[in-house]
Amino acid sequence: MASFPSLQNDLLLRTARGETTNRTPVWMMRQAGRYLPEYRAVRETHDFFEVVETPDLAAEVTIQPVERLPVDAAILFCDIMVVPEAMGLEVKMVSGQGPTFPQPLTTPDEMERLVEPDIDDALGHVFEALTVTRKRLNGRVPLIGFAGAPWTLMAYMVEGGGSKSYRAARKWLYRHPEASKALLQRTTDVIVDYLIGQVEAGAQMLQVFDSWAGLHGPETFRTFCLPYLAEIAERVHAAHPEVPLVVFAKEAHFALDALAATDYDVISLDWTMAPDAAREVVGDRAVLQGNLDPCALYAPPDALRREVQHMLAGFGPHHHIANLGHGMLPDHDPEHARVFVEAVHEHSEHMRTV
Amino acid sequence: MASFPSLQNDLLLRTARGETTNRTPVWMMRQAGRYLPEYRAVRETHDFFEVVETPDLAAEVTIQPVERLPVDAAILFCDIMVVPEAMGLEVKMVSGQGPTFPQPLTTPDEMERLVEPDIDDALGHVFEALTVTRKRLNGRVPLIGFAGAPWTLMAYMVEGGGSKSYRAARKWLYRHPEASKALLQRTTDVIVDYLIGQVEAGAQMLQVFDSWAGLHGPETFRTFCLPYLAEIAERVHAAHPEVPLVVFAKEAHFALDALAATDYDVISLDWTMAPDAAREVVGDRAVLQGNLDPCALYAPPDALRREVQHMLAGFGPHHHIANLGHGMLPDHDPEHARVFVEAVHEHSEHMRTV
Repeated sequence: MASFPSLQNDLLLRTARGETTNRTPVWMMRQAGRYLPEYRAVRETHDFFEVVETPDLAAEVTIQPVERLPVDAAILFCDIMVVPEAMGLEVKMVSGQGPTFPQPLTTPDEMERLVEPDIDDALGHVFEALTVTRKRLNGRVPLIGFAGAPWTLMAYMVEGGGSKSYRAARKWLYRHPEASKALLQRTTDVIVDYLIGQVEAGAQMLQVFDSWAGLHGPETFRTFCLPYLAEIAERVHAAHPEVPLVVFAKEAHFALDALAATDYDVISLDWTMAPDAAREVVGDRAVLQGNLDPCALYAPPDALRREVQHMLAGFGPHHHIANLGHGMLPDHDPEHARVFVEAVHEHSEHMRTV
Repeated sequence: MASFPSLQNDLLLRTARGETTNRTPVWMMRQAGRYLPEYRAVRETHDFFEVVETPDLAAEVTIQPVERLPVDAAILFCDIMVVPEAMGLEVKMVSGQGPTFPQPLTTPDEMERLVEPDIDDALGHVFEALTVTRKRLNGRVPLIGFAGAPWTLMAYMVEGGGSKSYRAARKWLYRHPEASKALLQRTTDVIVDYLIGQVEAGAQMLQVFDSWAGLHGPETFRTFCLPYLAEIAERVHAAHPEVPLVVFAKEAHFALDALAATDYDVISLDWTMAPDAAREVVGDRAVLQGNLDPCALYAPPDALRREVQHMLAGFGPHHHIANLGHGMLPDHDPEHARVFVEAVHEHSEHMRTV
């Protein structure tokens, strides 16, 4: 491992490990992205995957929100599709549609097209981006790495791109349950190596995004999501017990109790979960992260501050990492992001004095 | 009110009213539709809104699943967009996108474009379709009418069409809360008249579809969905206490307790809700409807039967109307729909003997 500048703001990591702190750490999913004019300036001359694949550019856009806003973490600018790409599926960014696989896995036979990647060969650019970013951050805030969860990646690999219902992928689960498990296991193995590589390159916390977990009912989640999510946490923690792991199973409201029984340190909540209800289920088994409705950032500043206070009160002062319930949106006003972050700082300090 | 042939199969209505029966009634959301070759044959020569607006055609496709499958109800073939259309917004069916408003309500000022409709003028074709259908059903099964919920209609009216996140509509809620409430109230008033008119035309049960309820968190649901849903049930029941009312707030897992406190007789669940957990929250305050994952109909028949048995066991033998957790999908095999319906019949009778 490289040696890095020492960390000056360790609020996030201490909270993720279950310690109490003098205020609530805050960052935003997709805090590096299109809502920032300085990001759009970079994208004027570089396309999306060029930014992802060029460590200097990835580091630049990763650090942009840290330069502008008093966030307590940076999260690497990258895309969950780099894993299916490393497994041999071509990915294209289609304007207005997001990442797209021109040749998805329409039948289990087509799994023959997948390769077992050499992680450093296939994903070395991500590792290099982490190392460059960590150095340039110079200890200001910790650096978060991430990966898509096996089911979410499978959903894209089978469907070919974004979809409202991921019907093709869900049909696979019911028609080809054993092939689905084989695909999920192969993806899990790559994700584990990828996340371990991220830690060795400089990531100080890792988040697993199961963005489409909410397409499941409790039963199919238990069969096709939970075992792979749990295995990822166990194997990554076995290699790096010191690195906090976060799981974000979006809309899987039914899964909280099961996730709390896994090896993740932090459970990230979307905005449909009431913080106090989540706390009641999870207890002290995990720190909670989230969960302001991203659309609340459209509200006028005073109303937004009230929303933040209400959210913080729901979680209570400790064992909470403030975040949105999903990512920043392209038409968000960066000044409203500032209101969000500063309101978390101010109100969470205030909560500790009363 | 017209006089109609007497009802031979009253399982659905008796169950919806809280009576116990000798088997569980079953129907499927979107049971009249593209998965049926006889429906596609009608659509070869008639476009979607032509079928909706022509009582003879609407009756024909409504009765198609009743002719083919042993379902315990018919649901009128119609579209929730007829209400915004009656309120003055032009609706077009765009192939591959669904119903679309060429001129959505981009700002509150544009609410001036809305009209207060004369219900019989604007929606008389729906009432006539119900009357024709009820007569042609000849008492075989009860006829269900429906409407979209205020928030779901507002989401379309503001967004202009289908969307993954309904960001424009959700932005309205945070930016223009008072105008949002005014729009929701105006829509509520039309829906109430529309549903009362449906009963007078022959509908024997009514379902309110809040398809986008799950885009809310618990707080915005309480502000922008619940009061209007509750008002609809109260006002329709005041006019027709004998007609069971069903509410389907899709993905609003957090709303079960609040919905159980309203005047709806039946709460319909999507497939992400565990039946036993829902029963625990709702108790005997409402009958439950649902909730097989529509994608389970892609499974081979034996696996599908096991899924049905598992679902029925979760709900228990009584106070349950079997259904899917969402609508039938265009590539479903009608023979798998038959397996679903017959498995409900057989297994629910069996459950009462053990």
